[in-house]
Amino acid sequence: MKHLIDGLIKAKTHFYYIRVHYEDTDIGGIVYHAKYINYIERARTSLIRLIKFPPEKFLNNGLSIVVKSINFDWYSSCTLGDCICVETNILKTRKVSIILRQNIFNFDRSKILAKAEVKICFLDTNIKVALIPNEFMKKLKINFA
Amino acid sequence: MKHLIDGLIKAKTHFYYIRVHYEDTDIGGIVYHAKYINYIERARTSLIRLIKFPPEKFLNNGLSIVVKSINFDWYSSCTLGDCICVETNILKTRKVSIILRQNIFNFDRSKILAKAEVKICFLDTNIKVALIPNEFMKKLKINFA
Amino acid sequence: MKHLIDGLIKAKTHFYYIRVHYEDTDIGGIVYHAKYINYIERARTSLIRLIKFPPEKFLNNGLSIVVKSINFDWYSSCTLGDCICVETNILKTRKVSIILRQNIFNFDRSKILAKAEVKICFLDTNIKVALIPNEFMKKLKINFA
Amino acid sequence: MKHLIDGLIKAKTHFYYIRVHYEDTDIGGIVYHAKYINYIERARTSLIRLIKFPPEKFLNNGLSIVVKSINFDWYSSCTLGDCICVETNILKTRKVSIILRQNIFNFDRSKILAKAEVKICFLDTNIKVALIPNEFMKKLKINFA
Repeated sequence: MKHLIDGLIKAKTHFYYIRVHYEDTDIGGIVYHAKYINYIERARTSLIRLIKFPPEKFLNNGLSIVVKSINFDWYSSCTLGDCICVETNILKTRKVSIILRQNIFNFDRSKILAKAEVKICFLDTNIKVALIPNEFMKKLKINFA
Repeated sequence: MKHLIDGLIKAKTHFYYIRVHYEDTDIGGIVYHAKYINYIERARTSLIRLIKFPPEKFLNNGLSIVVKSINFDWYSSCTLGDCICVETNILKTRKVSIILRQNIFNFDRSKILAKAEVKICFLDTNIKVALIPNEFMKKLKINFA
Repeated sequence: MKHLIDGLIKAKTHFYYIRVHYEDTDIGGIVYHAKYINYIERARTSLIRLIKFPPEKFLNNGLSIVVKSINFDWYSSCTLGDCICVETNILKTRKVSIILRQNIFNFDRSKILAKAEVKICFLDTNIKVALIPNEFMKKLKINFA
Repeated sequence: MKHLIDGLIKAKTHFYYIRVHYEDTDIGGIVYHAKYINYIERARTSLIRLIKFPPEKFLNNGLSIVVKSINFDWYSSCTLGDCICVETNILKTRKVSIILRQNIFNFDRSKILAKAEVKICFLDTNIKVALIPNEFMKKLKINFA
């Protein structure tokens, strides 16, 4: 499968494809449940990379992105060799936080594997909550609102 | 610090200590958020190991433990070298699921790092939800109800 | 960057691209050294997937691929957001083992990050070393000899 | 099992115990091979923590420890629930590098799981190789020479 390494944005949604590797599976023969949390982080980071706000740019400006909360539901398992798709939407933007919906599907999107709602915010170098940078918020809204 | 490798049960609560390692941290200088999900799985598995129902015993009987949902809130970060404590309580037991509360504290328990509510269930070899084994449920109640 | 999810074979070499993610980095600000071992496993597995011998096919036939030895040298670090390339060659094939050279480069291949020599073999369900399957060996030689 | 969270030093050797967790295993039913590289890093870091030179102390002084090379041989597998032991010795100390032998055994040390030889060095904030700090070297020699 040919694909864009950071996924793509279509119809206000970010699509991100992942091949399941050995390291992702466990003795149960399926993907280790916590790995899904890593998968959706890769998707979120790829989304902001695509709109030209990669996380290392924020880090250089003294801002780090942190996860405040996740509500996660598992529906189906996947296993070694599967190709899966993380779909990300922006649910809400506030002054100091962003809430995303991130659903994971099998490759042809006929089956949902997991659903997540994720709240992120920014911390400054004093580890205080910072305002979401203005230019970033604008870019997000252009692409996802 | 001398401690029990699978933690200990005291006052209907399981306590499990973890030293934060290099592999757990990320470029932000703190523990990678998803690693907390691994930490609480280690604690849950250590809890059932302590009461003589290790996961490999279930696997040998064709039962695997799966996570159905997690609600997770991050409050504070921790970093390389920190020693942290996962406290686990059984909130609810049903015929086919168990709900646990798992909170993560710093070593002297003066600061909460994260709170989680986790729902687990058992799957049989046909990947159908199975009843929680009776003997296991009894043992859980003796220790945590 | 548009790319093939399992890499590509060109001039008897397998090329596999990886975007460095948060989870790959550590508090030192660079990729955690052990993660390179995961990276080259992804590349090896993608190589055999490309020639239509995915690992799950072997597992279904009671064969698992195991690593016997790795000699690994680190030369340069990489960090969050970097896109790197794993190049894999078959150095030697024997009846019961295969030796691969796997080098990791930065994206434009102007800098070497790491070099590895990896010996793999197959185990049967009795955990005994098995002959490399004939059809697989032929396919390997067609593509890499 | 009661044990010291950072292992212990006895007869010029560092002993470090690890319980194998779900996250360490893969679909093959055994510990994912690269995880052994993480295990021995935990052991090395615990060793220097025990002699009062934790890695975060070096980081605060602008020094980071990096792995230059690893020669690793796998002999036996281990799986979920196993308790294993990493034994670490200092093989050689030079002005700018340290070579360690790190062997992994099953719990009662009746079976060797893996052998490694690891070369580490220090980098300063300009990412140049630095002299091994004198006080640290002395402490290493007192405990391991």
